[in-house]
Amino acid sequence: MKRIAVDMDEVIADPLKKFIELYHRDYGIGLDLVIEPGNEIHQQVPHHVKDKWLEYINEPGFFRDLEVIPGSVEALSLLQSKYDVYIVSAATEFRNSLIDKWDWLATHFPFIGWQNQVFCGKKIVDVDIMIDDRIKNFANFKGRPLLFTSPHNALITHYERVNNWQEVLDKLM
Amino acid sequence: MKRIAVDMDEVIADPLKKFIELYHRDYGIGLDLVIEPGNEIHQQVPHHVKDKWLEYINEPGFFRDLEVIPGSVEALSLLQSKYDVYIVSAATEFRNSLIDKWDWLATHFPFIGWQNQVFCGKKIVDVDIMIDDRIKNFANFKGRPLLFTSPHNALITHYERVNNWQEVLDKLM
Repeated sequence: MKRIAVDMDEVIADPLKKFIELYHRDYGIGLDLVIEPGNEIHQQVPHHVKDKWLEYINEPGFFRDLEVIPGSVEALSLLQSKYDVYIVSAATEFRNSLIDKWDWLATHFPFIGWQNQVFCGKKIVDVDIMIDDRIKNFANFKGRPLLFTSPHNALITHYERVNNWQEVLDKLM
Repeated sequence: MKRIAVDMDEVIADPLKKFIELYHRDYGIGLDLVIEPGNEIHQQVPHHVKDKWLEYINEPGFFRDLEVIPGSVEALSLLQSKYDVYIVSAATEFRNSLIDKWDWLATHFPFIGWQNQVFCGKKIVDVDIMIDDRIKNFANFKGRPLLFTSPHNALITHYERVNNWQEVLDKLM
């Protein structure tokens, strides 16, 4: 059975929406959800907002109640019938994200067992397919990378792209 | 640079000693540290002690103050000069172990950055050498496995064995 590695943030979980909600809560200022293609969220907001981004994502609880990216639950459930599906998240950079991510997966993806969870730094996984929004995770990867569309990667052209979970299913099922 | 995956429990950290201490604290009974070759700790103790084992390792804090396996800090520091050294621990089975293991590494192995930490279930890592006390982690592994001696694996003969960290250095440096 071929192995697939699936990223969390901006692929199955939505940290951008949570950040915007927290910022609105704390400052009463709405941030534009539409990020220019090729930009990171912190490139489009005032400097002090960039600092808040780092502060928020280091807080216990930030990753616990993120919204699920549409279609991802159904897609992973279907993919599991044909592939060995792993969640592979660069979580060790943020100490407090570890338990939040574990709990979040238990809530939204209970069919992915602990055996198939990887919380890491560099993604040195031995898999056949990797679905990720960050091309840095494709460096030295020998398998088939699928670039999951997010505003920050919208201008990248040299990777096979998937714009949503239906497109992943169209390619892999 | 070749990659090495190094396991935590019974390779760089000592959960057996901690368990014996907790059991003595709670029941006033000393357990024999000498485990018969080929046996797991729970095979040598009364049935209710086996249940305590599972209870203890699920408690927050269990993995936070484990003793360091002798020679491991110096060995990993030396290995880092020649290899890309990763800590790869089957931690996702125990939710509360995640932060404890992260903090423990920060205390005892601060020279291993978050980039080189992997908390997972199945060890699907793409590395050249794997140092582990559990042969189940060598299943489907294409690199060079080094079996780190622990009582439970003492009777296994079909893997290259290392009895301590000096022997690892003798083989790899």
